[in-house]
Amino acid sequence: MVYKMRVLILGADGYLGWPTCMYFSKRGHEVIGVDNYFRRMACIELNCEPLINNPNLVERAGIWEEVTGRKIHVHIGDVTDYQFLKSVFEEYKPDAVIHYAEQPSAPYSMIDRDKAAITITNNLISTLNVAYAVKEVNPSCHIIKIGTMGEYGTPNIDIPEGWIEIEYNGRKDKFLFSRQASSLYHTTKIQDTDLLWFYVRTWGIRVTDLMQGPVYGISTEEADIDGRLMPNFNYDEIFGTVLNRLVVQAVAGYPLTVYGRGGQTRGYINIRDTLACVYLAAENPPKEGELRIFNQITETFTVNELAKRVKKVGEKLGYDVKINHIENPRKEAEEHYYNPKYTGLIELGLNPHHLTEEILIGMFKIVEKYKENIHPHKIFRGIKW
Amino acid sequence: MVYKMRVLILGADGYLGWPTCMYFSKRGHEVIGVDNYFRRMACIELNCEPLINNPNLVERAGIWEEVTGRKIHVHIGDVTDYQFLKSVFEEYKPDAVIHYAEQPSAPYSMIDRDKAAITITNNLISTLNVAYAVKEVNPSCHIIKIGTMGEYGTPNIDIPEGWIEIEYNGRKDKFLFSRQASSLYHTTKIQDTDLLWFYVRTWGIRVTDLMQGPVYGISTEEADIDGRLMPNFNYDEIFGTVLNRLVVQAVAGYPLTVYGRGGQTRGYINIRDTLACVYLAAENPPKEGELRIFNQITETFTVNELAKRVKKVGEKLGYDVKINHIENPRKEAEEHYYNPKYTGLIELGLNPHHLTEEILIGMFKIVEKYKENIHPHKIFRGIKW
Repeated sequence: MVYKMRVLILGADGYLGWPTCMYFSKRGHEVIGVDNYFRRMACIELNCEPLINNPNLVERAGIWEEVTGRKIHVHIGDVTDYQFLKSVFEEYKPDAVIHYAEQPSAPYSMIDRDKAAITITNNLISTLNVAYAVKEVNPSCHIIKIGTMGEYGTPNIDIPEGWIEIEYNGRKDKFLFSRQASSLYHTTKIQDTDLLWFYVRTWGIRVTDLMQGPVYGISTEEADIDGRLMPNFNYDEIFGTVLNRLVVQAVAGYPLTVYGRGGQTRGYINIRDTLACVYLAAENPPKEGELRIFNQITETFTVNELAKRVKKVGEKLGYDVKINHIENPRKEAEEHYYNPKYTGLIELGLNPHHLTEEILIGMFKIVEKYKENIHPHKIFRGIKW
Repeated sequence: MVYKMRVLILGADGYLGWPTCMYFSKRGHEVIGVDNYFRRMACIELNCEPLINNPNLVERAGIWEEVTGRKIHVHIGDVTDYQFLKSVFEEYKPDAVIHYAEQPSAPYSMIDRDKAAITITNNLISTLNVAYAVKEVNPSCHIIKIGTMGEYGTPNIDIPEGWIEIEYNGRKDKFLFSRQASSLYHTTKIQDTDLLWFYVRTWGIRVTDLMQGPVYGISTEEADIDGRLMPNFNYDEIFGTVLNRLVVQAVAGYPLTVYGRGGQTRGYINIRDTLACVYLAAENPPKEGELRIFNQITETFTVNELAKRVKKVGEKLGYDVKINHIENPRKEAEEHYYNPKYTGLIELGLNPHHLTEEILIGMFKIVEKYKENIHPHKIFRGIKW
């Protein structure tokens, strides 16, 4: 089989990882998926298993091949183990590596000192290893990293796409836009950016950093082929993203958990658009020695707006949906200015799926199918900042 | 004995750590020194032992007590081991903790992937542990951390003391000044700043971050009391700081190693002023919830200026001193704008020792005493960026 590109996906078993594997495989690329099952183990440890009990990565790849005839290579191992990662690079010499292999939860990172240390070590050593493997094995390989809009925090000025020119005392220079996050997890993503920016300048590697907002959505075009190919879908406070959680809460008859006043504004993105963005980045690599940054969101909402939309759609579908403003367990501004720019990916060709009533109804319909798997006591435990 | 303050010094066996222990002890404070001997072991591993073969930390504390009657408590252990660090906090409940327990060498961090990983893990987990120990045991404890001017890099605009107000599209906000370092080690110090700034905002702890330039000097007031109390003094490329190295090179008849064109400008500080700065910070703590940043330098020089001064003094003392512009092993600007502000510590009361001919002669005189310990092959090995 003649492949277009060889793509290594780290964190291939995750919410975004598995759908990304299928998306690239479907489009004629050779896909190598790596995962250490950290997320699966953490969900058991913390008693917050996802809504849908998905097969493991080896099984998923088998089902994908059975259904489509396309092979996804799978290696189970830890990206923080450099010899392991290097051996995968040596075996495949990928054209692009998509780095999702991070501890992705803000509340997880705030539970205690040990979870904070796991988050720092996992996220920074995995990123360091990716940079070293690229430099030592395959220097032209394009690193695509998922960053987060949370790196910027909620500044009182507009948020550009990664960079800002500063004029100070009559002189000018260009810098990374100042970052100031509101969880330890988000802080490790700032540190990732620092790390990659250093190696980009020093070694001339090429990196795309996608500053993503909270993702929502339960299925993708490829997952729709077969129920066994569905993405992981967490509805708990630790690993669930906000809109996904609110939909499950509505179906479960659990009052929607809005933290504090609910004026927290963020940029959101549909999981289908995440796949398209990562794909666009891979198809259009930056030049060597460039750190290219895109803000990967398609629209902004307050939590109150999301809750109202979920309530409206839920009531249309016959649910009695209540909104509960609970005491905010986090330290964050509950009303603030928020004006990020996000035109770079549109210019590359992204055609966004905005959050319509139809999309919300689609999410409700899938959650309803798995309704018996919802354990209301797993929804909220109040991890404090 | 009635002590003024109880001060925990992490990295107490280091170039700055041990002189800091004596400085605070002499001034009536109770001092607890912690070290894991990382630096001693690394110097053996990398074949770059210091000029003076100093007694270990337990012995140093014994000599100090013998000479002055003042006790310094010593605990040998690793600050990245949280249970160990927490037990020290619980035993002493310090008023201030001075965090020097980091891997401090830029070339070390660039040797290979494993040394980079050690630098990241050691520096970030030690800082995380300090923040957690303060929060869990003693929340009002003042954290004094040694940062580095290298965090700022060499921007084309003036460098303020840590913070900058940015006006953008007609709105304003205040941010950490954008950081962009030129080694992995210096990048971990940026990451430290990110980490502490997050916990300052989240937990309301109090932190002073001292952005220090390269330190020079061989002795201090307290070390002058007894030769066995001398600071560590590295003259190699890995752990030696630039002016210290140049003086040893002059005494050894080794042509002064200037990297590239030598226009690299940095802010410098005498080790005696480092002690005074840290002491001023400890005596004047910031309020809770404040990250206070000072640029801890007293004057700026190019490497060429340092080499010329060393040559001039060396020749006055009868040495034949040559300057050798070797190929720069680092990736850095060799000519650049550099205008940092450094008035904060002066305003707190610092009375700087500038780099005079007399001070340079003093350094030569001490190095001459230990001349037989200089191994010229340990001076330069060319670790590449």
